[in-house]
Amino acid sequence: MPMITLLTDFGLNDEYAGMLKGILWSIAPTCHIIDLTHQIPPQDVLQAALMLGRVVPYFPAGSIHLAVVDPGVGTSRRPIAARLGEQFFVGPDNGLFTLPLLSAEKIGAPIEIVHLNQPAFWLPTLSASFHGRDLFAPVAAHLANGVPLAQLGSPVHDPQRLNLPTPEPIPNGWRAHILHCDHFGNLATDLTRAETGSTALRVLISGQAIPFVNTFGDGQPGELIALFDSSDRLTLAVVNGNAAQRLNAAVGSSIEVYRI
Amino acid sequence: MPMITLLTDFGLNDEYAGMLKGILWSIAPTCHIIDLTHQIPPQDVLQAALMLGRVVPYFPAGSIHLAVVDPGVGTSRRPIAARLGEQFFVGPDNGLFTLPLLSAEKIGAPIEIVHLNQPAFWLPTLSASFHGRDLFAPVAAHLANGVPLAQLGSPVHDPQRLNLPTPEPIPNGWRAHILHCDHFGNLATDLTRAETGSTALRVLISGQAIPFVNTFGDGQPGELIALFDSSDRLTLAVVNGNAAQRLNAAVGSSIEVYRI
Amino acid sequence: MPMITLLTDFGLNDEYAGMLKGILWSIAPTCHIIDLTHQIPPQDVLQAALMLGRVVPYFPAGSIHLAVVDPGVGTSRRPIAARLGEQFFVGPDNGLFTLPLLSAEKIGAPIEIVHLNQPAFWLPTLSASFHGRDLFAPVAAHLANGVPLAQLGSPVHDPQRLNLPTPEPIPNGWRAHILHCDHFGNLATDLTRAETGSTALRVLISGQAIPFVNTFGDGQPGELIALFDSSDRLTLAVVNGNAAQRLNAAVGSSIEVYRI
Repeated sequence: MPMITLLTDFGLNDEYAGMLKGILWSIAPTCHIIDLTHQIPPQDVLQAALMLGRVVPYFPAGSIHLAVVDPGVGTSRRPIAARLGEQFFVGPDNGLFTLPLLSAEKIGAPIEIVHLNQPAFWLPTLSASFHGRDLFAPVAAHLANGVPLAQLGSPVHDPQRLNLPTPEPIPNGWRAHILHCDHFGNLATDLTRAETGSTALRVLISGQAIPFVNTFGDGQPGELIALFDSSDRLTLAVVNGNAAQRLNAAVGSSIEVYRI
Repeated sequence: MPMITLLTDFGLNDEYAGMLKGILWSIAPTCHIIDLTHQIPPQDVLQAALMLGRVVPYFPAGSIHLAVVDPGVGTSRRPIAARLGEQFFVGPDNGLFTLPLLSAEKIGAPIEIVHLNQPAFWLPTLSASFHGRDLFAPVAAHLANGVPLAQLGSPVHDPQRLNLPTPEPIPNGWRAHILHCDHFGNLATDLTRAETGSTALRVLISGQAIPFVNTFGDGQPGELIALFDSSDRLTLAVVNGNAAQRLNAAVGSSIEVYRI
Repeated sequence: MPMITLLTDFGLNDEYAGMLKGILWSIAPTCHIIDLTHQIPPQDVLQAALMLGRVVPYFPAGSIHLAVVDPGVGTSRRPIAARLGEQFFVGPDNGLFTLPLLSAEKIGAPIEIVHLNQPAFWLPTLSASFHGRDLFAPVAAHLANGVPLAQLGSPVHDPQRLNLPTPEPIPNGWRAHILHCDHFGNLATDLTRAETGSTALRVLISGQAIPFVNTFGDGQPGELIALFDSSDRLTLAVVNGNAAQRLNAAVGSSIEVYRI
């Protein structure tokens, strides 16, 4: 019962994700399919890569992640499939899989990446603009059926990697950057609990100090707070409210964080 | 083949629902997962509870409903799991399950509720802000695997219950309240067919009379009508149109309904 | 392991699609369910029909497509189920299935259509406004269980068909119409590659010439281009951008296309 996840920027109004599901079912009729999201901002490879980095650790060994955020479709960017640790990935070679790759490298887990150049595993016709449908979905389904990576393509040793944003060191602290605004208006930064050592912190945005707390329950409803979120990122939030609206802040804004 | 539904306020843009699915698959690999909605307004426990009340009767015995609308996460609110009649529920003890509980009580069906206090059935680390991932999803998966409720926690005899809105009696009728505006702009109230006795009715909003009909087909395209909807709630609608836009009305508005 | 797809205008905020899934699981517990979309514009039968026409060819034989865009619910429009080629369809007889029907006719594939008039296969109570739940979902589940079409209703030989938009001939070319604006802002027209013969073309909107290219990679980021999309429709697009916003154009706008 292979498990396949979908992560795309296709949105929810069109048939694009449905086409992928039809192809997956056609080739691998017993697979289980779930949607991670189809709401990645169009062509935003970085947001997709960051999200994969956060969600993949919660999936079981053998999961196949089909990720299609593909601004380079129709150019010379390579289509790839990979085993990174115990999970599998299929999509364009544009850095989407940077974080699972780094994780696998860090612990010395198995890594195998192939350039998908075997049309026998694709749809009969390859369109110029929709490799998600014509190439990546069929390959993911063949993987689900147990076809080894080595049959799907040739070895790749230089996969693309994204330059991931990191906090800048400043005297006695960091300038951190807002990387993600979630559905609740929580603003997550690139500063992690591990990097700060989880000590007491002083957090400033545009010169305004924001109380640093351990949990939402430590703030009052409506209060603006800073805390480490459930993915251990320093995050600005309003208790039962929306920090993005309150601060009128967006991805790319920076904050200052000081050790106390 | 256990069946698990998800009802949350997580939205569709982030990885939160995907994390739940990864955990469900990790622990209960054969489960079927479907999304009820992730679009409950943030922290709106009442809307989530009302929706569960409407949808649960259409699910088969043995279904597991994982519902996470959890403004109290990180406070002392209890995490619970319940058998209510022939179905199962997992989520915070904040009233989310009020309607299935009332239904089970009404017919004398089996009721068993437990306070989830057995960390052996959770993820190894419990974050302060995301019990959906760290506690509720693993517990739902263990339920799907057949772990009895009694192993998951201690008995609860005083679950939280919401005060559900009800129509106010007025001379010869009711003041009803708009409880829900759906995707079509239909405005459903808290007055049910059963309560009115389904007789002829006169319906007024802001003094304006609205024709009361049996079905959409009894109105003309574009006509504002009142009717009992498919969940037997008195509802304002525009035939092939949008009543919320027409009336500029929202959840909380009231209407007057008189027997004729 | 029968496969059922859902295509509706129910949106994602309400319980309507969830009710269908509960019923499908109640009657056909082993079925696999996927969402095509629930975001068809309310009551827009044409958009739903066009989308079905594009997506159905990617599904395997035996798939069951449950499509509910049903502005005529509660009137005399017939509920139908159909075998068109190797796939099955359930929904209102309002033209939703025009394109799979035309495809099956074109190649002489099997066609069987029935008027769903056997209440034994419905829910016990038929509401006036939600046949998706009370009639179509139960019928789709019984189909998944192997009940033959002939038991579900009486033969239909005159299914409704939509008048599909087609390009108008003009001297040395066509006036084409924008039929669909997708999530990326790409504007697809009713002019297909097959109809033009795929030759060199000159494309004008409001007198403005738009470069006609083979693939997205042939344009510069931000450039407005015309190309045949992955469904072989002439389409206006902005490379890594949004043509609908750039042109302020919408469904129904027309363009002129000339042979060179």
